[in-house]
Amino acid sequence: MALNPLTTHPFDDAFHEECGVFGVFGHSDAAALTALGLHALQHRGQEAAGMVTYDGRNFHSVRGLGHVADTFSSVQAIERLPGSYAIGHNRYSTAGDTIERNIQPLFADFEFGGFAVSHNGNLTNAVQLRRDLVRRGSLFQSTTDTEVIVHLIATSTYVTVVDRMIDALKQVEGAYSLAALSRDAMIGVRDPMGVRPLVLGMIDNAWILASETCALDIIGARFVRDVEAGEMVVITENGLESLKPFPPQRSRNCIFEYVYFARPDSVMESRSVYETRKRIGAELARESHVDADAVIPVPDSGVPAAIGYAAEAGIPFELGIIRNHYVGRTFIEPSDQIRHLGVKLKHNANRAHVEGKRVILVDDSIVRGTTSVKIVEMMRNAGAREVHMRIASPPTTNPCFYGVDTPEKSELMAAKMSIDEMQKVIGVDTLAFLSMDGLYRAMGEVARNNRAPQYCDACFSGEYPTRLTDHDDGGISAQLSFLTEIIGGRR
Amino acid sequence: MALNPLTTHPFDDAFHEECGVFGVFGHSDAAALTALGLHALQHRGQEAAGMVTYDGRNFHSVRGLGHVADTFSSVQAIERLPGSYAIGHNRYSTAGDTIERNIQPLFADFEFGGFAVSHNGNLTNAVQLRRDLVRRGSLFQSTTDTEVIVHLIATSTYVTVVDRMIDALKQVEGAYSLAALSRDAMIGVRDPMGVRPLVLGMIDNAWILASETCALDIIGARFVRDVEAGEMVVITENGLESLKPFPPQRSRNCIFEYVYFARPDSVMESRSVYETRKRIGAELARESHVDADAVIPVPDSGVPAAIGYAAEAGIPFELGIIRNHYVGRTFIEPSDQIRHLGVKLKHNANRAHVEGKRVILVDDSIVRGTTSVKIVEMMRNAGAREVHMRIASPPTTNPCFYGVDTPEKSELMAAKMSIDEMQKVIGVDTLAFLSMDGLYRAMGEVARNNRAPQYCDACFSGEYPTRLTDHDDGGISAQLSFLTEIIGGRR
Amino acid sequence: MALNPLTTHPFDDAFHEECGVFGVFGHSDAAALTALGLHALQHRGQEAAGMVTYDGRNFHSVRGLGHVADTFSSVQAIERLPGSYAIGHNRYSTAGDTIERNIQPLFADFEFGGFAVSHNGNLTNAVQLRRDLVRRGSLFQSTTDTEVIVHLIATSTYVTVVDRMIDALKQVEGAYSLAALSRDAMIGVRDPMGVRPLVLGMIDNAWILASETCALDIIGARFVRDVEAGEMVVITENGLESLKPFPPQRSRNCIFEYVYFARPDSVMESRSVYETRKRIGAELARESHVDADAVIPVPDSGVPAAIGYAAEAGIPFELGIIRNHYVGRTFIEPSDQIRHLGVKLKHNANRAHVEGKRVILVDDSIVRGTTSVKIVEMMRNAGAREVHMRIASPPTTNPCFYGVDTPEKSELMAAKMSIDEMQKVIGVDTLAFLSMDGLYRAMGEVARNNRAPQYCDACFSGEYPTRLTDHDDGGISAQLSFLTEIIGGRR
Amino acid sequence: MALNPLTTHPFDDAFHEECGVFGVFGHSDAAALTALGLHALQHRGQEAAGMVTYDGRNFHSVRGLGHVADTFSSVQAIERLPGSYAIGHNRYSTAGDTIERNIQPLFADFEFGGFAVSHNGNLTNAVQLRRDLVRRGSLFQSTTDTEVIVHLIATSTYVTVVDRMIDALKQVEGAYSLAALSRDAMIGVRDPMGVRPLVLGMIDNAWILASETCALDIIGARFVRDVEAGEMVVITENGLESLKPFPPQRSRNCIFEYVYFARPDSVMESRSVYETRKRIGAELARESHVDADAVIPVPDSGVPAAIGYAAEAGIPFELGIIRNHYVGRTFIEPSDQIRHLGVKLKHNANRAHVEGKRVILVDDSIVRGTTSVKIVEMMRNAGAREVHMRIASPPTTNPCFYGVDTPEKSELMAAKMSIDEMQKVIGVDTLAFLSMDGLYRAMGEVARNNRAPQYCDACFSGEYPTRLTDHDDGGISAQLSFLTEIIGGRR
Repeated sequence: MALNPLTTHPFDDAFHEECGVFGVFGHSDAAALTALGLHALQHRGQEAAGMVTYDGRNFHSVRGLGHVADTFSSVQAIERLPGSYAIGHNRYSTAGDTIERNIQPLFADFEFGGFAVSHNGNLTNAVQLRRDLVRRGSLFQSTTDTEVIVHLIATSTYVTVVDRMIDALKQVEGAYSLAALSRDAMIGVRDPMGVRPLVLGMIDNAWILASETCALDIIGARFVRDVEAGEMVVITENGLESLKPFPPQRSRNCIFEYVYFARPDSVMESRSVYETRKRIGAELARESHVDADAVIPVPDSGVPAAIGYAAEAGIPFELGIIRNHYVGRTFIEPSDQIRHLGVKLKHNANRAHVEGKRVILVDDSIVRGTTSVKIVEMMRNAGAREVHMRIASPPTTNPCFYGVDTPEKSELMAAKMSIDEMQKVIGVDTLAFLSMDGLYRAMGEVARNNRAPQYCDACFSGEYPTRLTDHDDGGISAQLSFLTEIIGGRR
Repeated sequence: MALNPLTTHPFDDAFHEECGVFGVFGHSDAAALTALGLHALQHRGQEAAGMVTYDGRNFHSVRGLGHVADTFSSVQAIERLPGSYAIGHNRYSTAGDTIERNIQPLFADFEFGGFAVSHNGNLTNAVQLRRDLVRRGSLFQSTTDTEVIVHLIATSTYVTVVDRMIDALKQVEGAYSLAALSRDAMIGVRDPMGVRPLVLGMIDNAWILASETCALDIIGARFVRDVEAGEMVVITENGLESLKPFPPQRSRNCIFEYVYFARPDSVMESRSVYETRKRIGAELARESHVDADAVIPVPDSGVPAAIGYAAEAGIPFELGIIRNHYVGRTFIEPSDQIRHLGVKLKHNANRAHVEGKRVILVDDSIVRGTTSVKIVEMMRNAGAREVHMRIASPPTTNPCFYGVDTPEKSELMAAKMSIDEMQKVIGVDTLAFLSMDGLYRAMGEVARNNRAPQYCDACFSGEYPTRLTDHDDGGISAQLSFLTEIIGGRR
Repeated sequence: MALNPLTTHPFDDAFHEECGVFGVFGHSDAAALTALGLHALQHRGQEAAGMVTYDGRNFHSVRGLGHVADTFSSVQAIERLPGSYAIGHNRYSTAGDTIERNIQPLFADFEFGGFAVSHNGNLTNAVQLRRDLVRRGSLFQSTTDTEVIVHLIATSTYVTVVDRMIDALKQVEGAYSLAALSRDAMIGVRDPMGVRPLVLGMIDNAWILASETCALDIIGARFVRDVEAGEMVVITENGLESLKPFPPQRSRNCIFEYVYFARPDSVMESRSVYETRKRIGAELARESHVDADAVIPVPDSGVPAAIGYAAEAGIPFELGIIRNHYVGRTFIEPSDQIRHLGVKLKHNANRAHVEGKRVILVDDSIVRGTTSVKIVEMMRNAGAREVHMRIASPPTTNPCFYGVDTPEKSELMAAKMSIDEMQKVIGVDTLAFLSMDGLYRAMGEVARNNRAPQYCDACFSGEYPTRLTDHDDGGISAQLSFLTEIIGGRR
Repeated sequence: MALNPLTTHPFDDAFHEECGVFGVFGHSDAAALTALGLHALQHRGQEAAGMVTYDGRNFHSVRGLGHVADTFSSVQAIERLPGSYAIGHNRYSTAGDTIERNIQPLFADFEFGGFAVSHNGNLTNAVQLRRDLVRRGSLFQSTTDTEVIVHLIATSTYVTVVDRMIDALKQVEGAYSLAALSRDAMIGVRDPMGVRPLVLGMIDNAWILASETCALDIIGARFVRDVEAGEMVVITENGLESLKPFPPQRSRNCIFEYVYFARPDSVMESRSVYETRKRIGAELARESHVDADAVIPVPDSGVPAAIGYAAEAGIPFELGIIRNHYVGRTFIEPSDQIRHLGVKLKHNANRAHVEGKRVILVDDSIVRGTTSVKIVEMMRNAGAREVHMRIASPPTTNPCFYGVDTPEKSELMAAKMSIDEMQKVIGVDTLAFLSMDGLYRAMGEVARNNRAPQYCDACFSGEYPTRLTDHDDGGISAQLSFLTEIIGGRR
């Protein structure tokens, strides 16, 4: 598995969402709106951003490594993207693949015109499909699974773009929420289980597609509805047409979106993410409370659960850890000296509120556990008398194959250790996770339906809702390109 | 007054601290430690950062526009700064002066060797002194007030660096906390009233100077003590010597450091900033509480006061406004289109928790009021039933002349309007500020001693603790250089 | 036709060669040697440069806009190109197509491994072939004609790379000298008429392919022989194999390579380019001498012909025009002011040697004539008494379709005017061109064989040696991509 | 002596002129004209370029490392330089001092307004003067000798700028041609011996100052006259006033300007540089001709002398060495591999014209001799039967202290070896230099007047026309600054 450069950051021990998608159909400010929408979705992917617009004659593409603002904050960038139709994409990826030709939206010159597509999710049979396509003479330019969809469309024997897309998608397995743009239409699709989110909005009579509602809020667009699992919406000058081209299936939204990925101000499938996290915190307090002086969130993802926990437990909520807002992507090349000093680039204990106290740390999840070890050490050094850790989700025991960058199973702390062992390694007085049923209760269910789980919770349960063709094939490690590439020179 | 480019940000309506200083004497990792210290002090100045080190023979300087990490996160930058002695500086400044020759530390080749200095604060008679020096043939390279100190040292008739510095500082008025480096010594000085902070720390037998204790924490240094008002500490291979060269005076620390500037995890003059802000919030609740469903902080500076308020008032603390962590310095060139759309780059209402609610917004202060108007509008659009605003300080009615970038008096909302008028313009149901005595109570005083105020509170009271020579002279608007300058070309 | 940004340069009125190719098979310094070879071939293409190496497992690519040195002069660039096998490419192109995905070598992941190719020349049926391939589902990433060859190889039903290449090349028309690299072999091919040059060299037992011998000289390689027209050389660990897969045809090397394109120190098909140009100058003097005080070359391409002319005519050769060596690619964005001033960025009259003199200007060719007008004006302003112009080639009346960027026929001065008219417009006392037979005599022929011309001289004669399928089709103006693209962001 | 990074170039073994100056007084396109003038003077300094303009209220400065075009070719750069008054500067310097604060024009804020100055030449008592000024409290920002002049003006007790300049210049020794700009005047001065050139021109009623006439030609300005040795021209709105403030002295123009530095199309003190070089070549042929097949110039500086030699000797002039025009500043970081390969980045033998021939190489001078060794080796490898070298100047035996970057005496080949020894080391069959009297004859003199030489020829004769105070003092090696400096960060 490719090296994740971010894991050199002391506290960056989290799952990383791989993508956010956004689209506008029929607005004179399409590119500017898309830049804003991508900015609001920045948490879903920080390594690259791209946009394709269509002006009625030509498509225009601007793509770049880094944050949305690195590429799209200037007037010039927006001016290079004329047209009333736009789709965009935020990308998170592992280091080996952060190359320019992988930045989405992908674009293709089909016989019938241009076509661009943005993808959130991950296909589980992409390697197999790619192998077949290469055998037929298709040349791949990227190492993304998304390009498989594009070639399937190119080689489909159907006539219209929509029929070709349906033909292509019927061949793929896995998770996908797509925003695509052709000469005539913007198309949104969600895989039959709706693993990744996708919502519809409207502003000034223009349709919007977005991964989350926070991207509608930033531009002042009205939320219309979620795109449904298995639904394809085809938006043209004649309006929106809803297709259901796939065999019907029970939806399995990703439950981790509620635990960690989604922005707290988003509303998914009619549930407030923030409110859900507070309810998770309250469930956690009900399940495993311990007496203490303060509830301290691990910033920033633990905050809503900590608020919910503190309120339920009747203990003060305190900012016992202060976050340095100026980190972000900046210290990506920490010098050896700096690393050697074992420093606290991102967080500092608020000593005045920790010293001599019994504290409950609330975090959303534990992945490798490296962050937790350091946070607890920081609390101890700041003089905490007791340190209890409460995790706002069940133990993370399995990798995700649906569009989230996770370590291999062997690196997941909860896959290797018992809770008692974790408690010792992390160095806390007590450690407790939320139960699976507790998590489902916070989602408004009575409990998990073990025969037909209401959500995709594979990272906790190991029960994957689709076949894992490439993985079972060993194909996941196939070398997708024999090329390593640098584009540079004078600019 | 020069244009502040940051005020184009929808919600950036705050005072800006002008500087942070840091120094290390006698540590083999001096440059790396200083980079980290400056990083922890990033909130005190984000427009430029610089460092000078001394290796026993030569001084080395690396300076650059932007954040500390833009200039100092690479191994190469640190390698260009050899030596065990280092001082550094973070700069905030108005646009007109953000030029490279103004980036500190300033450096001078004196007859007796090199000398570098970092300055936090502002002199109030710098223009007058500069005029005299120019008349004598001194050539100024920067437009900073700090260079006046350097020329006064250069032209002093005393012999030693320390005596020349004392001679120079006796001629200046205003606020200064300095960290200076000569061939033999690192020198820390705080002006006679100690307006700006400066602390001493120690790591591995090396002395540290820093604007705040959070910069000691990041490198794991031990806090030793505050440098006292009017104290000069001279640190050499023989240890630390404390001088008190100025006539004794009652200290007047800046009270706004506690309200807004300092990092919440810092401890200043033995008080926790975070704890003080919580006490301010509690005082505010006691003075002006109104019944409501939730206390919502304006992120991020309003959070501790809101926690204190909520606890005191017994109302839930809720994150009703979500901050986008990916803003920072990035959208500095928002396109006209984006601005036109009136967007929410930085914050979004957490609609699920605002709709239909009576909310109390807690913010640290109101400067121009433009932010408040937009935040309240956002709450209203998200469906808040009632919006009450509580400000964790008295009305800001006067500009600062001691090292903080503030608008002119005519732009300060509280200088132009009554509280009733402000309430209407901002669009809240009720508006209340903390009383001056309430603020002093939160600082542990019984009340403000009006005949001899315990702090510098000029921004609230208009009572400036020093003469304002340049200002009274009209000199503040003198053109300090006839040159505008670009350095570019091939690099 | 796309805008040529270089024609804004006052004196840049020349044909532009589109490419240089270079390859190394089996040398530990393959990348460094290729960088040098490309540098020696810089005159064949200055807009972009690229290289692909193979290290026995993976291919590595570095490509960039600008000169070879912009991308390949650093140690880092060479270190990113490990392996003993390398091919490289210099590109000249029109502005519309100077995009990063067009920079060669092109690379493809075939079923049987990676494949890279560099192309000098131009296909005359690429648009038609591309249309067929797109219809079959091939997705094009570039707008180069070269990618057609790659897709033809990918979709060929033959098994080996060599057989697939032959299959592909049998379908194309036009000019091509290729250097290709697969896992097992470096392959050099020249089209059946050998329009563009390609030579074989050897250094330390490693084979070299290069467009010209000057690229062998720079690395100290030994010249082995020209690749023959219609020959494919397949170089593997087992040595070089020569194939002749195409129906035999009489060769038609480009005669303009001798007139202008090739470097004077190159030797092509056993003829010294420099010596040939001197012979051209001598022929010109024999055909159209006029009495004068000095023979002045238009720098730099007119120099050898002027030396030959002066020697034959017995008149002094003088540098009457001085070239500023610091131009090159630098003033690519001349300000309007500068343009308005009508300036002499590149050349200056050597007034001391022009004033009062009768001068003969010798230039290699006249394209649009704009340069000639300005050069003559410069001579007149410097006080020349008489200005005679002698052109070292016949009138250029037709565009090239074989890999040279030429204006359309309607912009060629000699296609629109008689020699008398040109003489008036250019403002010379007399104007004479070399005759077609004179040019062939300088090449060592008795005369042009009009029934079977020995060279491709289509730019002078209009007799194109291949079909011009796309051109006759009107296809030349087909829009090859619906996409305009920028790749940027943080780097 | 500081490392010269250019000497890593195989054939860059020449003296380097340190500066070119240019000024415009009273033209609406002042900045654009100055950019062009500096471009024409690029050969006098390639490491940095700068310009200061005055718009009637403020001065504006743009300076940058690299070529003129790197900093000044864009519209934006020119737009940042408003005003009708401008001076500019090209800088060549040794590596240690190529820092941004050393780029000229230097600017100072005097009591009476701004002042900018550009300097060509070098002072021989600058270190001593600097030491005195620092003792008085003057702070130096650069390590240039020019800043001494600025501080002497600042501390002068005279009243007007002109009087202060005269006061300052009377204290300095050495060579200087200055272009200065104050609020009221542009001032040109040449030291009493006129070592470095300076000419006056006029365009559209605006006065021009330039180091050479080629800078007048590029903008179409009319040559008015040379500024005389010891003359100060003060150009104001009232016209030009000529002062002769220094004690009269016999002029001693630098003779090496004619041999190598100046552009061949310039006219200095009424002599054509090109014509003078041809006469030098003819003298050389008369003094030391040997029978041969061809006269080959070492490009490009040897060309005029070779033409003169060939004409006088009646032997063909041939381009036996071809120069790659794409070198320039580009391969400044040649990889070790490339260096190791001992390559010919800049030149290639024109084998077809060298093989089997007896050749005479003509070069302008021999400095370290390293270039000559390699050129001769190249000729031998290309098959030359005999190689004779003729040098168009006397042996270079002494360093220059008047503004030219020369190696120390110990590195000058002719200072260490006899001509016989040089002949052997260089590997030629015969070697001859021009005699001193031959050089003077080419300048139109009967012979050198040994009691009162007509030119500064110290590099050949060791007779320096001024005191060398710093050098005799050992002061030349004084450390002028204790600071090494990098300016970087986000831009």
